[in-house]
Amino acid sequence: MAEHLSQSELDYPFKLLEYLNGFRISKAIFSACELGLFDLLLQSQKPLNAAEVAQTLGTSEDGIERLLDVLVAIEIVDVEVVHGTAHYNSTDVANLYLAKTSPKSLHDLIIYYSQTIYPLWNNLVDAVRDGKNQNEKTFGLPSEEIFSAIYRSEEEMLKFMGLMNSTWVIDGHDIVTAFDLSRFKSVIDLGGCSGALARELAKEYPSSTVTVLDLPAVVQTAQQHFAQQDDTIGFQEGDFFEGEIPPADLYILARIIHDWKEEKNLKLLRKIHTACHPGGGVLIAEALLFENRRGPTTVQMFSLNMLVQTEGKEHPPSHYTRLLTDAGFRDVQVCRTGKSYDAILAFK
Amino acid sequence: MAEHLSQSELDYPFKLLEYLNGFRISKAIFSACELGLFDLLLQSQKPLNAAEVAQTLGTSEDGIERLLDVLVAIEIVDVEVVHGTAHYNSTDVANLYLAKTSPKSLHDLIIYYSQTIYPLWNNLVDAVRDGKNQNEKTFGLPSEEIFSAIYRSEEEMLKFMGLMNSTWVIDGHDIVTAFDLSRFKSVIDLGGCSGALARELAKEYPSSTVTVLDLPAVVQTAQQHFAQQDDTIGFQEGDFFEGEIPPADLYILARIIHDWKEEKNLKLLRKIHTACHPGGGVLIAEALLFENRRGPTTVQMFSLNMLVQTEGKEHPPSHYTRLLTDAGFRDVQVCRTGKSYDAILAFK
Repeated sequence: MAEHLSQSELDYPFKLLEYLNGFRISKAIFSACELGLFDLLLQSQKPLNAAEVAQTLGTSEDGIERLLDVLVAIEIVDVEVVHGTAHYNSTDVANLYLAKTSPKSLHDLIIYYSQTIYPLWNNLVDAVRDGKNQNEKTFGLPSEEIFSAIYRSEEEMLKFMGLMNSTWVIDGHDIVTAFDLSRFKSVIDLGGCSGALARELAKEYPSSTVTVLDLPAVVQTAQQHFAQQDDTIGFQEGDFFEGEIPPADLYILARIIHDWKEEKNLKLLRKIHTACHPGGGVLIAEALLFENRRGPTTVQMFSLNMLVQTEGKEHPPSHYTRLLTDAGFRDVQVCRTGKSYDAILAFK
Repeated sequence: MAEHLSQSELDYPFKLLEYLNGFRISKAIFSACELGLFDLLLQSQKPLNAAEVAQTLGTSEDGIERLLDVLVAIEIVDVEVVHGTAHYNSTDVANLYLAKTSPKSLHDLIIYYSQTIYPLWNNLVDAVRDGKNQNEKTFGLPSEEIFSAIYRSEEEMLKFMGLMNSTWVIDGHDIVTAFDLSRFKSVIDLGGCSGALARELAKEYPSSTVTVLDLPAVVQTAQQHFAQQDDTIGFQEGDFFEGEIPPADLYILARIIHDWKEEKNLKLLRKIHTACHPGGGVLIAEALLFENRRGPTTVQMFSLNMLVQTEGKEHPPSHYTRLLTDAGFRDVQVCRTGKSYDAILAFK
């Protein structure tokens, strides 16, 4: 029998209990974001007591105090007790990643996790049993049409785009610098959503033309809600599965392959290969599993998440190499970033 | 501004992302328990591949494989890849704490967390906003009658008793040995539920008479489902809030105080003080907060849990000392066990 975690776990299961309580920590942070707590603490010029926070956010004092104390315990909020009254203050980490106004904010990712993913995972047993996503049981939506479920309303589309945007705001730079992409003068980000990754690319390679191609409704929402001053990226409405793929030097497929079954992905990559300029290539951004199945933990969880929400899964590098080679690409290069998402480059 | 977590968290929020993903790890373990995975792996004489596990448990092969791989990543399941096929094996930790048949099994705690607490916490924002439990929004049950909600059906009563039982199976020994209780010859565990803590006490102090006093339905369920061979503990049906409290040397209040408001607790402790033999005492078992509010993390989360599910909360030692003193007890002694639950002893 294998010995795992530490041997002392057998005396008392501290780490296991931490895992079992993980959902409480997640939901505490999620709820604080939803209530606007981190924004209030960032904007406040001084530490606030629970009564002040409660009054501003419109919550009960007792409830917000307990939530604040959880956040203190995990060191996301700071506390100082003065004359018996606790005064709460923000931390650098909260200001940088949790306040909505921060350029590196994970706020939108958190809202999506809290309101969409958390309820979906309540049906994980059914997902494992049936081997399919739980959009129907959780939200009453057909399980076959993934993006009809994800984009089921304008509000949900905006939330999902916020999730994608958050990710690339913290992971995008590592993806676009994983390889030297300066040789590619025209770049199309297929399913580029809010444009966050495309913006990172345009910033790093200012002499390249970067275009996001996505569904008309997505492009319109991106331009309405995610446009930035001095935006140098372009948007093009289209459907890269059903419609045409315009010619370019480089195609980006960021978190696209993991949504779909192999056959559909192979067809897409062949279509991209045909459209691609000679000497061009494709850059895939996905979270890569280890070949030996032992992790990374986050990626194994993402793969289970894909089961709960889509028809795809996460893969180790060998899968992408084979897929790209089958589609006609060559010289596949893999770069693990050490962050949540990795990069794979292949040439026509 | 305070600097918390590690400074490197500002470069990339690894720890924060771990917190945000905590609910996924919890639900993965919960679901594996619900599907009977750990029992199968324990009983199997050899490592099993995903197809074999899927067939025995009646799940999809793809789904169970992804779930197994998450459990491998967090080192709760072991894997060996032989000729390209993954074979999964149990670990000591899983056999000891997750398999249903183990005497230290957390299986029942996990079922309760998964099916009752996880959905309740999906309404944490409302709990904080309204400052009250979410039994009504989550399960359509009145928020005022906590135990009508918790004991809303025979099935739910059994699940809740399983939760309590699991806790004392791993934490009970530390509670009953926190102080030398050998001088107390008659002991009544008020609200002693399945009797798990009373059994630990009877085992440690064989010359004491230990009786569990609980509601009639609870006592009947305890005797039907949790009785053990050679049980030396007794059961008595009663209601310690509404009815009489029989005389004894020592009263146990394990996870009772944290369910209720102060006034109700004070009234209960005064009633116990009156019934208590001279020289007797009361032993409170609760998870204790630090006086400075900075933790322990688990206890801060328990306190937030009490908001979501009850009308009580967790407290630091000073609160219990004051409460016990106000009720007439003296010589209050506090023992932090270093595990999930702590002990407080006071004398009449």
